[in-house]
Amino acid sequence: MGVIGLGGRGQDLLQQAILPRAEVAITALCDRYQDRVDDTAAKVKAAGIVSEPALFTDAYACLESGTMDAVLISTSWEEHIPLACRALELGIAVAMEVGGAYSERELWTLVEVYEKTRTPFMFMENCCFGRDELMVLNMVKQGILGEVVHCAGGYLHDLRDEIAGGEQNRHYRLENYLHRNTENYPTHEIGPIARVLDLNRGNRMLTLTSVASRAAGMTEYLEQNDDTYPELKGRIFRQGDVVSTTITCAGGQTIHITLDTTLPRYYSRGFTVSGTKGMYCEENQSIFLDSEESHRKAHFSWRAQWGNVENYRGDFDHPIWQAFLADEVRGGHGGMDWLEFDAFFEALKSGEPMPIDVYDAASWMVISVLAEQSIALGGQPMAFPDFTRGRWIAH
Amino acid sequence: MGVIGLGGRGQDLLQQAILPRAEVAITALCDRYQDRVDDTAAKVKAAGIVSEPALFTDAYACLESGTMDAVLISTSWEEHIPLACRALELGIAVAMEVGGAYSERELWTLVEVYEKTRTPFMFMENCCFGRDELMVLNMVKQGILGEVVHCAGGYLHDLRDEIAGGEQNRHYRLENYLHRNTENYPTHEIGPIARVLDLNRGNRMLTLTSVASRAAGMTEYLEQNDDTYPELKGRIFRQGDVVSTTITCAGGQTIHITLDTTLPRYYSRGFTVSGTKGMYCEENQSIFLDSEESHRKAHFSWRAQWGNVENYRGDFDHPIWQAFLADEVRGGHGGMDWLEFDAFFEALKSGEPMPIDVYDAASWMVISVLAEQSIALGGQPMAFPDFTRGRWIAH
Repeated sequence: MGVIGLGGRGQDLLQQAILPRAEVAITALCDRYQDRVDDTAAKVKAAGIVSEPALFTDAYACLESGTMDAVLISTSWEEHIPLACRALELGIAVAMEVGGAYSERELWTLVEVYEKTRTPFMFMENCCFGRDELMVLNMVKQGILGEVVHCAGGYLHDLRDEIAGGEQNRHYRLENYLHRNTENYPTHEIGPIARVLDLNRGNRMLTLTSVASRAAGMTEYLEQNDDTYPELKGRIFRQGDVVSTTITCAGGQTIHITLDTTLPRYYSRGFTVSGTKGMYCEENQSIFLDSEESHRKAHFSWRAQWGNVENYRGDFDHPIWQAFLADEVRGGHGGMDWLEFDAFFEALKSGEPMPIDVYDAASWMVISVLAEQSIALGGQPMAFPDFTRGRWIAH
Repeated sequence: MGVIGLGGRGQDLLQQAILPRAEVAITALCDRYQDRVDDTAAKVKAAGIVSEPALFTDAYACLESGTMDAVLISTSWEEHIPLACRALELGIAVAMEVGGAYSERELWTLVEVYEKTRTPFMFMENCCFGRDELMVLNMVKQGILGEVVHCAGGYLHDLRDEIAGGEQNRHYRLENYLHRNTENYPTHEIGPIARVLDLNRGNRMLTLTSVASRAAGMTEYLEQNDDTYPELKGRIFRQGDVVSTTITCAGGQTIHITLDTTLPRYYSRGFTVSGTKGMYCEENQSIFLDSEESHRKAHFSWRAQWGNVENYRGDFDHPIWQAFLADEVRGGHGGMDWLEFDAFFEALKSGEPMPIDVYDAASWMVISVLAEQSIALGGQPMAFPDFTRGRWIAH
């Protein structure tokens, strides 16, 4: 396997979710920055890998070097799809990191290249493997929350330092935040919600409206830290601090997602699932069930129930998490990264379909495109393309 | 003072927030149902009032009876504005209960009748007087949260029983839920947010988009309780279970509000305030401040900080709550009702402007009108009328 893109995410995944697997040989490493390549090569060597990987600073040369069966693409957002398409054409199985898209057209290209080549492709949305996300999914599939009519989520993460100066200003987020104004990172929350609502599997997203607040967070942050980031003095950030996006689905459900990455706050993905028999809320990690008298009685004084998800783990932890806990939870982001690479390598070996496929990738990533358009048009509703061309119905 | 509308709310306010005041004489009572009038009259008598109030089943006859200096209008939503206008014309000071509007035109009429008569008018949004709402407002006004760029809120209240059968099916919500599909109750959350964002006082709401989920909650509830509500068997509810509405403001802030009243859940108003120096979140009653190292360190493990609003009460409880606590918290809804009637009677005696005026009422209530239109048009953005006709700028 090769890894293209050795920034924080690529290095992290390599070391925590790939290198520990004896069955995987790292055969190529690539980054546009030589120092990252050298640094990562040294770490791989230190991990005791027998054969040294080939090293590249050109991603296409790397793909075309014939050194790999599979590739992790963890570059800047805008390089994900062109590199994935080239890899698919070369028959290299693709694990593509997340991010939003820039145009609908590139997503159609990804879908069509996949359909032409049938090279295995997985969209690496690790949050689909989160413990709470999978437990709630398990409850939904067992009907515990009834018919789900609304979900919410967000990428609620203070990234001001990373945007301004992370890794010597090399981070791709900076230029995106300076130039664009959109829901630029929807997949952490949409992935788990897509599973709850069977998106592309009997349901699909139909429309979206999006608005952005004004951009005050980065400006104030840079004013307070202008000695640290002199090169950003006076730069104007187009990216609004909070982007609110509401999605409607063919099944009549609604989804509300929030991007909030340039204000001081605690981290959350704001996962919320509301059904006719109950609900889950990440902000206080609680489950409310209509069937439980103690919940109904506490509905005006819910505080004592905060954190009550712990009471449901025994009955509803997802089977893959039960097995993971019985074995050993490892890998980054609380184990999610390990589980997603488990899924990738298992499907690759068995030839089974990837659990998060190219249609999921296209329909989740297009949110960034449609939100950018909706914001620019004052919150106008935009229609989702059907990347499955009708196959979501019979799925 | 007279009270028109003696359902749950009218009776509650009368007994908890008005009757205990020695300075207020209840001189008239009115409801379209005779039994409510008789029942309330008996309670007023039992409270030891010297002169018995005049009793009415016709609201206009009540207003025209010359028996009152002020009136509380706590009828069904659709009667609020016509009755308020008649009272203003008769020189009777109006305390008008909350609810959404049905047309933009009726709101203009209310504004114009007020401007012609200058009779005192207060919109009785009790949540503007909530302890947390006022504490957060106090922090915002002191700059503790920095520049506020986004707020959220909701009316998140399981009303299935009340909608289906409350008070022998007399509740006005039922017909609204059968016929309309909108953000029908926006003011509990918009009131406090309006204060945070200085709406109508240097800022105003510009646009709104709204979508509704499908309506599954009431149908399932009635199927489970069809012995209790046989007359509702097979009725179709147009009101979606969850309505998501996003508002943009002239100052560049965004507001997201949610109506969620026909699903099982705990009560919340989902109040959230996000600024450049910190945030408040009602769902876990916490405050995050960029200036506090303990908060920044806990940003990935926020759970220990849940409920930390208690740590801020000493420094930031609003002066009116400090006085209330030092005296005696009383009245319904945790004291909010008492404080709002304090504000009404104080302004009435002093001749000072009412704290929640006719322009607040019109711009908050019009949300129900615009949301109904936006939902019907597939989430189309709708523009807010400026009921102040420019006076919000110089306020």
